[in-house]
Amino acid sequence: MKWNIPTRDSSVRTAALARQAVLTKPAGALGALEDVAVWLADIQQQELPEAGPAAAIVFASDHPVSHRGVSAYPREVTPMMVINLASGGAAASVLARLNGIPLYVVDVGAEPYPDPEPGPGMHWSRIDVGGAVGDLIETDAMDTVALEASMQAGADAVDALPEETRIVIFGEMGIGNTTPASAVSARLLGLDAAEMVGPGTGVAGDALAAKRQLVHDALDRTAGTDAPVDVLRRLGGREIAAIVGGMGRAAERGMAILVDGFIVSSAALVAVNMDERIRDHMWFGHRSAEPGHARILDVLNAAPLVDAGLRLGEGSGALTALPLIQAAVALHNQMATFEQASVPDRED
Amino acid sequence: MKWNIPTRDSSVRTAALARQAVLTKPAGALGALEDVAVWLADIQQQELPEAGPAAAIVFASDHPVSHRGVSAYPREVTPMMVINLASGGAAASVLARLNGIPLYVVDVGAEPYPDPEPGPGMHWSRIDVGGAVGDLIETDAMDTVALEASMQAGADAVDALPEETRIVIFGEMGIGNTTPASAVSARLLGLDAAEMVGPGTGVAGDALAAKRQLVHDALDRTAGTDAPVDVLRRLGGREIAAIVGGMGRAAERGMAILVDGFIVSSAALVAVNMDERIRDHMWFGHRSAEPGHARILDVLNAAPLVDAGLRLGEGSGALTALPLIQAAVALHNQMATFEQASVPDRED
Repeated sequence: MKWNIPTRDSSVRTAALARQAVLTKPAGALGALEDVAVWLADIQQQELPEAGPAAAIVFASDHPVSHRGVSAYPREVTPMMVINLASGGAAASVLARLNGIPLYVVDVGAEPYPDPEPGPGMHWSRIDVGGAVGDLIETDAMDTVALEASMQAGADAVDALPEETRIVIFGEMGIGNTTPASAVSARLLGLDAAEMVGPGTGVAGDALAAKRQLVHDALDRTAGTDAPVDVLRRLGGREIAAIVGGMGRAAERGMAILVDGFIVSSAALVAVNMDERIRDHMWFGHRSAEPGHARILDVLNAAPLVDAGLRLGEGSGALTALPLIQAAVALHNQMATFEQASVPDRED
Repeated sequence: MKWNIPTRDSSVRTAALARQAVLTKPAGALGALEDVAVWLADIQQQELPEAGPAAAIVFASDHPVSHRGVSAYPREVTPMMVINLASGGAAASVLARLNGIPLYVVDVGAEPYPDPEPGPGMHWSRIDVGGAVGDLIETDAMDTVALEASMQAGADAVDALPEETRIVIFGEMGIGNTTPASAVSARLLGLDAAEMVGPGTGVAGDALAAKRQLVHDALDRTAGTDAPVDVLRRLGGREIAAIVGGMGRAAERGMAILVDGFIVSSAALVAVNMDERIRDHMWFGHRSAEPGHARILDVLNAAPLVDAGLRLGEGSGALTALPLIQAAVALHNQMATFEQASVPDRED
């Protein structure tokens, strides 16, 4: 799949860089916040970028592989957490509310539960993506129907955001989903299971060894499958596919994407492997405690802003980093220049 | 100096930890944000802590050592940046405004300049601390008069904050002040100049070597001076002394201190060496790009929240991290518990 991503005029980025150079600070002293402002100016094609409006979309799905004990939590937690997210009690809900942005919970395949009553600022919808799903080990994660419908659900969710949305955060909920994320990333990075699989929500010891073995077996079964969309279909999951589809659509619409932790980064890895131009639209919010995240970040040449040991998912890491994007934009747009402040610049 | 720091009831911390354990997330999945919430509950002695009101104080001073070419910028920048801070155009001013908190600029020894017109949310005052100051190399940074008046100015600035202030951020402005901060830290950490001195605002090559030599000479001249308050007087600076005095007073008043980068951390090192109980009141906002910062952080066992390569000072790093404190508190106070959300906890 190739997305229809608009080209950008490089002169805007040049102008934003020139502005950074005359703000009342030593050159480079705001570190990554300077880079963020210039990145956003480039993506938005305006020298003075805007830090909002932002919105978050959390995709949720069940994973048959969770029957095999890959998570510390029972799979019934997925629908219960969907309700918790929608009603406003989950971490991502709290952070979205704190940031004053809407949170859209989109169920693309969780086990059944009663329709929740969305809390203030929260939205909920359920999409039947159809098709067949599997446990990675014996059968593919998705058939073509489920894959394409999941990706389309992701694109549709982006299209359903308020028209003026400039920054989108993707999150996920799906007990067991560090397993497919590890499998997808291992294949795309050319690593083996032992190098990618970590504790997820907290498995250790024998359970961690078993999780590694399952990913190893899934990689074995799909040996030779290298095209990113096929890797996604055979080893991924519906919420991961929805994020890939959402990222592509966000890039097509000229939005900036603030990437969350391990699972969302595995989707980012798929999306960038499908179309490398999507990488330009991404900034990485935080460095997850999940060990495999560092490997994805390295390959995508990403330096996350927040390093707080989060490993929760739901988009919580990116939501935590959103104020730093706002800080970067405020500094870029509002700081005085050397000339305005009559401050002498450095002597050399 | 021993400060009159109130003792705390450890049961509040225990209760906050117990609350974290029943929130709808895997144990520990919010990483440092969990620690921040529990820390603030302990300091504020309430199980549900408050993330504000917060306030920032930026102390400014001239440094005679800046005559010796230790900075990439001329020393006239200090008074011009004081005006820029007060009028609202500096990085810290922009970030304070973005966070909706007041910024107090307190001049404890900058070279003369016309009284500025403070911008919205900004405050400015000038304190004549008197006494004698020196360049570290030939004479002590301060005599006893200047030291004590500077520390008192810091305490007074904390007392002048709005009564309800719960979190205080200290910042600094003083061309040349990575030199005294390096000297003070090197002595208190038992390191030599080469291990502590970095580029500051951007010196390199011969200029960096000369800066290292100056710190080496200052350490040589004061060999045997180990008591933290004496190290501060002989090798520090007036704004650094004001921060030390301000930190002590903030701890006495039960406030939380969000620590900025290299310079403020050198003041934190002095304060903790004077009274180790102050450490409990501190959280570290960001990891500075100034290499010596990592050494101070290690010794103070500090894991900053933000890793964005900032090296500006003014309190800008801590101001960037303030929203993460707010996120930690919102999560702690507002997330649903497993029981509230009817979510099954992990099976083991």
